[in-house]
Amino acid sequence: MSLNSFGHLFRVTTWGESHGPAIGATVDGCPPGVAINEAMIQHWLDRRKPGTSKYTTQRREADEVRILSGVFEGRTTGTPVQLMIENTDQRSKDYSDIMEKFRPGHADITYWQKYGIRDYRGGGRSSARETASRVAAGGLAREAIKALVPGLKITGYMVQMGPHKIDRDRFDAGQIEANPFWVPDVQAAQDWAAYLGELRKSGNSVGAVIELVASGVPAGLGAPVYGKLDTDLAAAAMSINAVKAVEIGAGMEAATLTGEANADEITMGPNGPVYSSNHAGGILGGISTGQDIVVRFAVKPTSSILKPRATITKSGENAEIITKGRHDPCVGIRAVPVGEAMVACVILDHLLLHRGQVGENQGHIG
Amino acid sequence: MSLNSFGHLFRVTTWGESHGPAIGATVDGCPPGVAINEAMIQHWLDRRKPGTSKYTTQRREADEVRILSGVFEGRTTGTPVQLMIENTDQRSKDYSDIMEKFRPGHADITYWQKYGIRDYRGGGRSSARETASRVAAGGLAREAIKALVPGLKITGYMVQMGPHKIDRDRFDAGQIEANPFWVPDVQAAQDWAAYLGELRKSGNSVGAVIELVASGVPAGLGAPVYGKLDTDLAAAAMSINAVKAVEIGAGMEAATLTGEANADEITMGPNGPVYSSNHAGGILGGISTGQDIVVRFAVKPTSSILKPRATITKSGENAEIITKGRHDPCVGIRAVPVGEAMVACVILDHLLLHRGQVGENQGHIG
Amino acid sequence: MSLNSFGHLFRVTTWGESHGPAIGATVDGCPPGVAINEAMIQHWLDRRKPGTSKYTTQRREADEVRILSGVFEGRTTGTPVQLMIENTDQRSKDYSDIMEKFRPGHADITYWQKYGIRDYRGGGRSSARETASRVAAGGLAREAIKALVPGLKITGYMVQMGPHKIDRDRFDAGQIEANPFWVPDVQAAQDWAAYLGELRKSGNSVGAVIELVASGVPAGLGAPVYGKLDTDLAAAAMSINAVKAVEIGAGMEAATLTGEANADEITMGPNGPVYSSNHAGGILGGISTGQDIVVRFAVKPTSSILKPRATITKSGENAEIITKGRHDPCVGIRAVPVGEAMVACVILDHLLLHRGQVGENQGHIG
Amino acid sequence: MSLNSFGHLFRVTTWGESHGPAIGATVDGCPPGVAINEAMIQHWLDRRKPGTSKYTTQRREADEVRILSGVFEGRTTGTPVQLMIENTDQRSKDYSDIMEKFRPGHADITYWQKYGIRDYRGGGRSSARETASRVAAGGLAREAIKALVPGLKITGYMVQMGPHKIDRDRFDAGQIEANPFWVPDVQAAQDWAAYLGELRKSGNSVGAVIELVASGVPAGLGAPVYGKLDTDLAAAAMSINAVKAVEIGAGMEAATLTGEANADEITMGPNGPVYSSNHAGGILGGISTGQDIVVRFAVKPTSSILKPRATITKSGENAEIITKGRHDPCVGIRAVPVGEAMVACVILDHLLLHRGQVGENQGHIG
Repeated sequence: MSLNSFGHLFRVTTWGESHGPAIGATVDGCPPGVAINEAMIQHWLDRRKPGTSKYTTQRREADEVRILSGVFEGRTTGTPVQLMIENTDQRSKDYSDIMEKFRPGHADITYWQKYGIRDYRGGGRSSARETASRVAAGGLAREAIKALVPGLKITGYMVQMGPHKIDRDRFDAGQIEANPFWVPDVQAAQDWAAYLGELRKSGNSVGAVIELVASGVPAGLGAPVYGKLDTDLAAAAMSINAVKAVEIGAGMEAATLTGEANADEITMGPNGPVYSSNHAGGILGGISTGQDIVVRFAVKPTSSILKPRATITKSGENAEIITKGRHDPCVGIRAVPVGEAMVACVILDHLLLHRGQVGENQGHIG
Repeated sequence: MSLNSFGHLFRVTTWGESHGPAIGATVDGCPPGVAINEAMIQHWLDRRKPGTSKYTTQRREADEVRILSGVFEGRTTGTPVQLMIENTDQRSKDYSDIMEKFRPGHADITYWQKYGIRDYRGGGRSSARETASRVAAGGLAREAIKALVPGLKITGYMVQMGPHKIDRDRFDAGQIEANPFWVPDVQAAQDWAAYLGELRKSGNSVGAVIELVASGVPAGLGAPVYGKLDTDLAAAAMSINAVKAVEIGAGMEAATLTGEANADEITMGPNGPVYSSNHAGGILGGISTGQDIVVRFAVKPTSSILKPRATITKSGENAEIITKGRHDPCVGIRAVPVGEAMVACVILDHLLLHRGQVGENQGHIG
Repeated sequence: MSLNSFGHLFRVTTWGESHGPAIGATVDGCPPGVAINEAMIQHWLDRRKPGTSKYTTQRREADEVRILSGVFEGRTTGTPVQLMIENTDQRSKDYSDIMEKFRPGHADITYWQKYGIRDYRGGGRSSARETASRVAAGGLAREAIKALVPGLKITGYMVQMGPHKIDRDRFDAGQIEANPFWVPDVQAAQDWAAYLGELRKSGNSVGAVIELVASGVPAGLGAPVYGKLDTDLAAAAMSINAVKAVEIGAGMEAATLTGEANADEITMGPNGPVYSSNHAGGILGGISTGQDIVVRFAVKPTSSILKPRATITKSGENAEIITKGRHDPCVGIRAVPVGEAMVACVILDHLLLHRGQVGENQGHIG
Repeated sequence: MSLNSFGHLFRVTTWGESHGPAIGATVDGCPPGVAINEAMIQHWLDRRKPGTSKYTTQRREADEVRILSGVFEGRTTGTPVQLMIENTDQRSKDYSDIMEKFRPGHADITYWQKYGIRDYRGGGRSSARETASRVAAGGLAREAIKALVPGLKITGYMVQMGPHKIDRDRFDAGQIEANPFWVPDVQAAQDWAAYLGELRKSGNSVGAVIELVASGVPAGLGAPVYGKLDTDLAAAAMSINAVKAVEIGAGMEAATLTGEANADEITMGPNGPVYSSNHAGGILGGISTGQDIVVRFAVKPTSSILKPRATITKSGENAEIITKGRHDPCVGIRAVPVGEAMVACVILDHLLLHRGQVGENQGHIG
């Protein structure tokens, strides 16, 4: 019932604050025998690392992960894996402003209202820095998945920045790694660069939409009625900082469709069922169909901006605040590897859950 | 870790299939001393009951709830409350068609693929009938909330049916109970009646968007980083049958906003912080601000339609299917009381969690 | 986190009070495809049923179980199984005495102190009647185990009644079903009959020790460090009404042994490791060795006796109480099938957990 | 559902192996505002530290705890507290013997059988070293309890070493801290020193019984029927390495008592109920009475002894093994502070649970 944990059998608990000595993830329930080392996890961490382009925060964090437990001679032992990332760039700066005033749109005020104490330095526990722990856990999850379902693939990318959506007709997966926005549309990459550059200079920020696709997921993962695969994916996505909406498959658009248009028709193919479309996003009744799992989430713009905003102080006085410092003009960019990590953790968890409850007894068609 | 349960301290496990002897909810962790009886729960069940208008399924279910445990002399005892609803309208009809063929867009195929066995009668466990159990649990949650935070109010309504959205300028909460759609817009109520009447006659169905507002929620509910109030609300909503998207506050729209536009500015009012807007939907960093909690979710159209659709049989042959029988042309209508019930359960759970961890030690402003 | 639940993947939540309309068990996570029907569960319930001999309470309960969900055409579907037992013998008797006075040694006073309300009729939730729900769940667990590990066998019996222990040299498993005490010692059965007859006549009661043996349990079940097989067995046993102590293998006696005497030596046999002894009770480091799992627990005497005892009333006045009515002179007798049921549930749960985390990758010797 | 975690609201997950870089505890759900620092936790760690007398292992570990998160300016923030202890004494010794052979009575063989891989160095995860993490978590729990129930006191001591029990008539709490055995009997302290000295010289080891008393625990903690206070205490104790039995109050002795002798009579005192005796060990029906909570557990002798024992190798050959190295002749000694820590964690957890579910509404007498 830990409130900083997620997952049923593959269970991740993250800990740590932005400006404390370290952050990390305690990962319990990983299958034994998974080949893993720090470099394999570092690969994923480097993708979300700050400072990789001018479009992300210039905070300089090495983000070097250390495996403190649960791995022996390059393989997991089945016991808890502790993944620790030391905080190296804790600049001793003047926090007097942020200590007294609450930044609008931030968790400053709610942490205070809940706990009566908060580590205000860099946002403390509510900092986007926490997501590094998730990416580390996701790196481990990916390797465990590889051992269980070799062909399974999880890919994230941006499909919208502010009001600018990608053109689905130009979709090119090969572009995702070729630009700082993880956008699968070469034209959008150019347009967004100009757009975000302007925003950044003006001290403003903007939101984004990230799409995640998991292909090669076997049919039958998930469970009625609350441990659904989509329930867990929705929770995983919504738990990421700044996320305000989650969609599966057709998402909000499903509201506009008729039953005739929405139902993905089925025919029998050589390797099993083939669907005419994927409005369901690969999930029916909370259980995977074998189609691509499609998840989308919206990230709000960071509220740490150079524009002055009205706020109040701890003692209840009206005030104005400008958030100086190193921040992301579009936190959605770095949310891409975070989203991928969360999807990896959820899918691994459901692979294990399914094996636990059902084993080899699942149903066959044909 | 039960997969048919939700909640941390106020924990609800639902059980039962559409055409079995009964369905119900096992509710553990309810505070003791809450005044409750069957009539108080029946009130909420009657709102989601099928057959209340021509726009919902004509299945005739009494949906009478019985309290089998956990209540003594009209008050909860703190032990598990068993809420049972007997299935009275289990028509002995011919299921041979649905037994062999999978309805596109339904959980028929995935249940089969997962378990290798399924109760196909009326959708079994994946039937919308399961949501009656949630409404019963929600009715109990509402009474427990009343004892803890008297002014707290939870209201649901439809804001979109198919492509037709309400006009927010015509918003009139007084209309919600005055039409069969729970829509707070008298003009929309008329337009939708015509629109849905046509759809129904043609044997088709359509999706919808439901909005839920909880007002009077104290600041400080929720928790970083996974037990967030919005994480639990998103999971609660996504767990409802047919839901494909969940939004908090600005939702998907947050992606289009700049940081300047999105940050709800704060000033000090006579009773605490006052916000210039509510893009956050009442939640910052996973913790309630004291503003209205705003949740929205999209419901897909039911796939049980009279239009023929291509599908396959259990033995892997191509086929065509028409779903005869009594179905909802817009399941979104009956999702309104279900959504309310889920929000009630989540908020009560977080009230108890907050009291458990923090007690009276929370922070004060001014 | 439900407080009336146990198990990780095979999760049982019991509900109901002694004199309410019904009691039952909500069982989630059962593997699909397990052949089960009401008669198969009834078989186990009949073993713990009151009134089967003059040595158990004369309360007449049919204890007929009904399966309300999760089973279709004689097999589990993988969805929650609701097992309900209606309370038929709720005599309308005068409870004024017990309503005001707390019986010493009973939960009357602590339920009141905790909740400020209690269903005093027949002990309410704290009644031994609750254990019928566990036996029903255990009956289902046994069938699920049978499908997974055919040779696995769980047997309980009494080894001590009051000060009278069995003579291990006379141990005869064939006797267990042949006497009302489930005692594997024909001489003890005779002696105890005389002893307990006297006690019963004098209106007194006595404690007992029950031993449970699970044979054929595969090596490798359990987990470090808190989800240990022995931790879960200890919790399962201690959760039974009136249990005050739990032992694994050598138990309390282990304290007296030297390391040399205690370590079960290992040699290689034709089918794997063979142990010279079983002080470990089949569990090392929380994980099963493949030897017999041996659990023992002590049951205190029921406090519902005809002897007058000093107590107080709700309003704080000193008083005296005699518990009239139908009670067990040795509740340990009926605790035998209850203990077996709990062991069955725990072992099934760990079979599923092991399959979930480890699958087929376990280690081999030789 | 994490298998290396315990607790409901105050939830502790331990991680780490004996000879890895570090071990630790991730503690979630601690109330905010608790005054804590590393020295306060170190105080408790130093009590279980190896090498404090000639009767404990001569392994030299600094056992210095570092708080990596969840504490700000000397107070807990309500977010996860990471307590890390680096392993400093990882001697590079020859493990070839232990790598191939399984020590009888150790988890070597079961870890191998379960996972197919094990960190054999120093016992890996199954090492008693893991209990340092529990003591650290317990140190934090004690401070949180202090803030909630100032007078609550938890004390552990040994009552038996091998066959030698203390004389209850000589019980002197003042002696507990005055000897290396935490024994409240000055004569036993002397006798045991001689006895254990002999055993140690002969390369043998012995078991022990530890008793734990929590006084000042308010009435009303615990819950039916599985989240009982005694269930959680039994699980907490049984989860400690080498523990084979747990008793509450009269424990195994309860089996020998009559109902008349066992029922603790109640009279009304100036501050509430007064009990004539405490066979219940402070718990009735799983809920605390307000009397002293009394828990006892038996620790088996360590199997790491200098006496040669028959065993097998990974490849299935018969062999003989002697465990050289630094080991505890009586691990029960160092189990005293571990037991105290576990009791502290369980009681804090139930204080929070009770506040969460019941708040101030509990029942009053008189």
